[in-house]
Amino acid sequence: MSPISNARKHTARAVMAAALTVAATPQLRGDEGMWTFDNLPVKLLKDRYGFTPEQEWVDHLRLASVRFNDGGSGAFVSKNGLVLTNHHVALGQLQKMSTPKKDYVKEGFFAKDLKGEIACPDLEVNVLVSMEDVTARVRAAVDPKASDKDQNEQRKGEISRITKASTDETGLRSDVVELYQGGEYWLYRYKKYTDMRLVMAPEIQAAFYGGDPDNFTYPRFALDFAFFRVYENGKPVKIEHYLKWSKDGAADGELVFVTGHPGRTDRLDTVAQLEYARDLGLPLYLKVAAAKRADYYAYAKLGAEQERRSKDRIFGIENAIKAVTGEYEGLLDPKLFASLKDAEDALRQTVAGSSDETTKNAKASWDKIAAATKKAGDRRLQTTYRAYAATKVAGLAGTIVRYVAEVAKPNDKRYEEFRDSALESLKFRLFSPAPMYPDMEEFFLKRALEDALRELGPDDEFVRAALGGAEPAKVAKDLIAGTKLFDVAARKKLVEGGEKAVAESDDALIVWSRKLDPVYRAQRKWYEDEIESVTVAEGNRIAKARFAVYGKSTYPDATFTLRMSYGKVAGYEQGTTLVAPFTTFHGLYDRAIGHSEKPPFDLAPRVKAAKAKLKLGTKVNFVTTNDIIGGNSGSPIVNAKGEYVGLVFDGNIQSLVGRYAYDDARNRTVAVHSSGIIEAMRAVYGMGKLADEVAGRK
Amino acid sequence: MSPISNARKHTARAVMAAALTVAATPQLRGDEGMWTFDNLPVKLLKDRYGFTPEQEWVDHLRLASVRFNDGGSGAFVSKNGLVLTNHHVALGQLQKMSTPKKDYVKEGFFAKDLKGEIACPDLEVNVLVSMEDVTARVRAAVDPKASDKDQNEQRKGEISRITKASTDETGLRSDVVELYQGGEYWLYRYKKYTDMRLVMAPEIQAAFYGGDPDNFTYPRFALDFAFFRVYENGKPVKIEHYLKWSKDGAADGELVFVTGHPGRTDRLDTVAQLEYARDLGLPLYLKVAAAKRADYYAYAKLGAEQERRSKDRIFGIENAIKAVTGEYEGLLDPKLFASLKDAEDALRQTVAGSSDETTKNAKASWDKIAAATKKAGDRRLQTTYRAYAATKVAGLAGTIVRYVAEVAKPNDKRYEEFRDSALESLKFRLFSPAPMYPDMEEFFLKRALEDALRELGPDDEFVRAALGGAEPAKVAKDLIAGTKLFDVAARKKLVEGGEKAVAESDDALIVWSRKLDPVYRAQRKWYEDEIESVTVAEGNRIAKARFAVYGKSTYPDATFTLRMSYGKVAGYEQGTTLVAPFTTFHGLYDRAIGHSEKPPFDLAPRVKAAKAKLKLGTKVNFVTTNDIIGGNSGSPIVNAKGEYVGLVFDGNIQSLVGRYAYDDARNRTVAVHSSGIIEAMRAVYGMGKLADEVAGRK
Repeated sequence: MSPISNARKHTARAVMAAALTVAATPQLRGDEGMWTFDNLPVKLLKDRYGFTPEQEWVDHLRLASVRFNDGGSGAFVSKNGLVLTNHHVALGQLQKMSTPKKDYVKEGFFAKDLKGEIACPDLEVNVLVSMEDVTARVRAAVDPKASDKDQNEQRKGEISRITKASTDETGLRSDVVELYQGGEYWLYRYKKYTDMRLVMAPEIQAAFYGGDPDNFTYPRFALDFAFFRVYENGKPVKIEHYLKWSKDGAADGELVFVTGHPGRTDRLDTVAQLEYARDLGLPLYLKVAAAKRADYYAYAKLGAEQERRSKDRIFGIENAIKAVTGEYEGLLDPKLFASLKDAEDALRQTVAGSSDETTKNAKASWDKIAAATKKAGDRRLQTTYRAYAATKVAGLAGTIVRYVAEVAKPNDKRYEEFRDSALESLKFRLFSPAPMYPDMEEFFLKRALEDALRELGPDDEFVRAALGGAEPAKVAKDLIAGTKLFDVAARKKLVEGGEKAVAESDDALIVWSRKLDPVYRAQRKWYEDEIESVTVAEGNRIAKARFAVYGKSTYPDATFTLRMSYGKVAGYEQGTTLVAPFTTFHGLYDRAIGHSEKPPFDLAPRVKAAKAKLKLGTKVNFVTTNDIIGGNSGSPIVNAKGEYVGLVFDGNIQSLVGRYAYDDARNRTVAVHSSGIIEAMRAVYGMGKLADEVAGRK
Repeated sequence: MSPISNARKHTARAVMAAALTVAATPQLRGDEGMWTFDNLPVKLLKDRYGFTPEQEWVDHLRLASVRFNDGGSGAFVSKNGLVLTNHHVALGQLQKMSTPKKDYVKEGFFAKDLKGEIACPDLEVNVLVSMEDVTARVRAAVDPKASDKDQNEQRKGEISRITKASTDETGLRSDVVELYQGGEYWLYRYKKYTDMRLVMAPEIQAAFYGGDPDNFTYPRFALDFAFFRVYENGKPVKIEHYLKWSKDGAADGELVFVTGHPGRTDRLDTVAQLEYARDLGLPLYLKVAAAKRADYYAYAKLGAEQERRSKDRIFGIENAIKAVTGEYEGLLDPKLFASLKDAEDALRQTVAGSSDETTKNAKASWDKIAAATKKAGDRRLQTTYRAYAATKVAGLAGTIVRYVAEVAKPNDKRYEEFRDSALESLKFRLFSPAPMYPDMEEFFLKRALEDALRELGPDDEFVRAALGGAEPAKVAKDLIAGTKLFDVAARKKLVEGGEKAVAESDDALIVWSRKLDPVYRAQRKWYEDEIESVTVAEGNRIAKARFAVYGKSTYPDATFTLRMSYGKVAGYEQGTTLVAPFTTFHGLYDRAIGHSEKPPFDLAPRVKAAKAKLKLGTKVNFVTTNDIIGGNSGSPIVNAKGEYVGLVFDGNIQSLVGRYAYDDARNRTVAVHSSGIIEAMRAVYGMGKLADEVAGRK
């Protein structure tokens, strides 16, 4: 019996169990929830939408869903391995594949046939093929009387043994996923694809129409889609589970589902942690990000080629600043914060009055987390400004130095990212042929070292090791000039040569990274022992108590693992008016003309030229109430029949507070409408053959 | 020398004087200001926009501008007396001209030629032909040592003498306008037109596209325009001063001017008055309005005909509620309120430290106004719920009873609205043949009496006189059944029969109004003696002090008299994105399809059918920074060449606080684009001939 069918059986059991035990959960609001596939909100769906998912339907969606390991989601949309995701998920690859002569970001990419499809340098995608509850195994390996630090070690050791055994046994990528802040542990096994080829990507001006001003807003008019094809052994993979295309796409009020990989939420964080985020963490983040943004723009101004190279970084930082500003503003809302505090107070009160051993156990946890959070806060400048991996090549050097040391240890004693199960993916990144630019690396390394010196002072251990009393500019210059690590072969040679090769290397960046290594390790040890072990252990206690109080009637915080959210297509109130659920190509031209076609509201030449050919009333973007967050980018939206109706690419500004809480009135997922994708492929891009493959012959 | 050329000379002097004496005014923000035509911001315009208006240009704009006396503005746009205004300014007339069989509100109105143009029942428009500063005359008539009450009498007496003399001399409608809260008095003479004929009005679904949700918001897609033609002696009037149509309409960033009749602002109100508005006045208004709205909807639900009759009232109350909510929310903004308080504190401090007699004189005025405001507030339920004119016909009855008594007095002893200069316009309204509906009148009279009884109690003097111990329902029923005042002839007969006829009348509503009359007069006397005389006199002192401090470098509060505002076409930031300055027909169809054509986002059938014929990229609506307020509806927007580029129909939600202060970042005037009007006339409505008259042959 293959592990896949094993997993299926398991999942089926879990869903049935969930259906029987589901309890009322006072905190759920509206269509809230990023549900794990073993614990879908079956009762809620039945009560609210009269819909009960079949196990086959659930499995099909899971197996058609794809994780982009760089951060994003996608789905199979043809039996010939075609994967649909966002342009902005593909952007990193497009950037890497572009050259000064051929800029796929600016001009788009359109393969006319299989031969025209080109290989991505370092793109890995995963499909979740099995899920197994290993909570009991992880718990059994932990001595509840041991110190938190020892418990943390024991837990990590057991997790590493579980993943190693699974990898050995199945050959599949195997991760143990911590859910409910340690309330549960699951072994997720993934089928892994690394031969990904680019099939089609619109021009960035069409994909990211409206640019930074329109990012995280709605109404929108973005053709934010891209197609890859999965290959194995030089041929397109035959896919059993792919999503059939809907004829008309999503309709107003229709029940829809999003499957994808939300990256991170902090909805179970304690109030102390949220206060830290609000008062120190997020403001510091925004300060650092604003400085970084200024650096990126400064670099981009150096010339056309520098501008081209900077596009994805600038997109990334603008995106992050807007997202975190949304989160921050959400937390600043006193009403929201009070409601989070009320929920915590209610749980703490129940815990305090409980006679149950597990529940009582969490009594002191909130205060302990508060103390650890304060401690972490006291060193926030160090954790922020010690720039061990300020630039790509410096980061690779540090990784190589640690790599050779870690892999020499027994598997369960290593840093997590160097354990056997992770090594293959890590090497894939380490040996990526994606271009790096020495002048760019030097520019940002210098800037990071200047920041460290200014913020931490010359006596900081990192600063001493990194600068040795020299000027940041000189250090950066010498390091970049003195390294051969831009060359993949040089990196490979060092890794293959192991500790000896690294110890003897006179590569400037390797020498430098060896100097930094003890500082890095001491800081990480402090963080793991003093902070992480407390927040994990006490979070674990709170999670257990929460289970005891509420049952498993809710969903865990996002962990960049597969989730399903449900919701409906719906407009919303904003600024005293009603935002329509759909936009159309009419709206795209309206916005362009309304802004006199000034950037970022100008039209890509192909889009402008296609006006007469397009069916202008075709829907382009739409909004749904689904609960999503970063990482869900590229997720498919399917209807109750499991048909592809939309492509998630954003959340509206009111959804950003979703990191901490779901706003049931105005949270909206923003998606490209399936009809708009096909219409653009046919009428704008002349990609009718690909459209036929996805949606059937016209 | 005709009064017109007199006025022109005067104006020329005033403008030149202004150019010489203009001083820095700390309170002006952005393109703030509703300027009188004698005191345009010449220096500001030159400094900011490099534009200096010629006197001829100024006079031409003034004489092409039209006031709709029911509340609204407009402009001449052809030499044959064509006046362009908003559909919602025309709405009252459209409603009055419609019948159950022919509903011009729903279906629109389109005269194919002069013969098809139909007369409005009671529409008066005015053109400001001269302006004369009479401050010195008014001041001279007031004994500064007399009591406030006597000063008020003296002032009103002199004003009435001035207007009477002017009417007698020129035959023109003559009003004395109080500016700067009594800082200046001006005699405005108007050419008056009463034979107005309807030429064209789109269907309300096109004119008021997006309905209440979109009201006061932007982006918008409303064809909110209507054409009237002015007749005299049965023929279209030949007009010298009309606005030439712009070929391309307003462009992004272009300097533009609005001429029109802003109804009312309270920007010179004291903080005590604003606190009263914020804490008592506006909340009470919103409570009453919400109840009224519920009544209108209840009546409209009685049947299709009742629904038809209610359209303009429902539009009016929804509009008022949204507007006042905007004002109220603006005042609730602590930052804004603090800035208003700071400005007042600064002026009070200067006044307190001044040795100048006029300035010192205002020292106690703020406190006196505060006391009077408090006193008014204490009786706010009476002034709100004593329903002397709860319905149309009851209001007419009360007016007739007062009319015959007042006109028997010497002109300067009468209530203002019965003085000779106002009588013609008053009679025009009193004898309007516009339909009234007995069942509708009874419905709302009953409701008003119920409210009065509930809020004031049975012992209130008004309630005792109005109900005499009976049930509101019975009183309303008997009054409506027992009146003949629905008939114009009956009203005329009473007015012509004078005091005797009214005293002997057994018409139920006249008998009732006679009973209410002493209560009305006592309440009005209290208000005029105790409140108005204080706020006017002290406001006058503050205004004088303000003049002494700032000079005449600013503009007076709006008074429903002709003003000019300047600004530019400009988008703005909202909800983290950029609102485009223009919308197009593309956007109209986008919004309709986006909302699945559900009301209020459905398309009028003609508009839907015209899609293939329309140039979809034609601009429909746009926004400018001009400072406007209710009453400006229908105002022309002209470019520096004086050409017609747009038609004001709204302000965005951020402009509503404009009653108290101008928001220089986001205040926007919302207008129909001149190109959109012409395109709609030609491609949607088949009104090419009229379009030719306005914009020239295509």
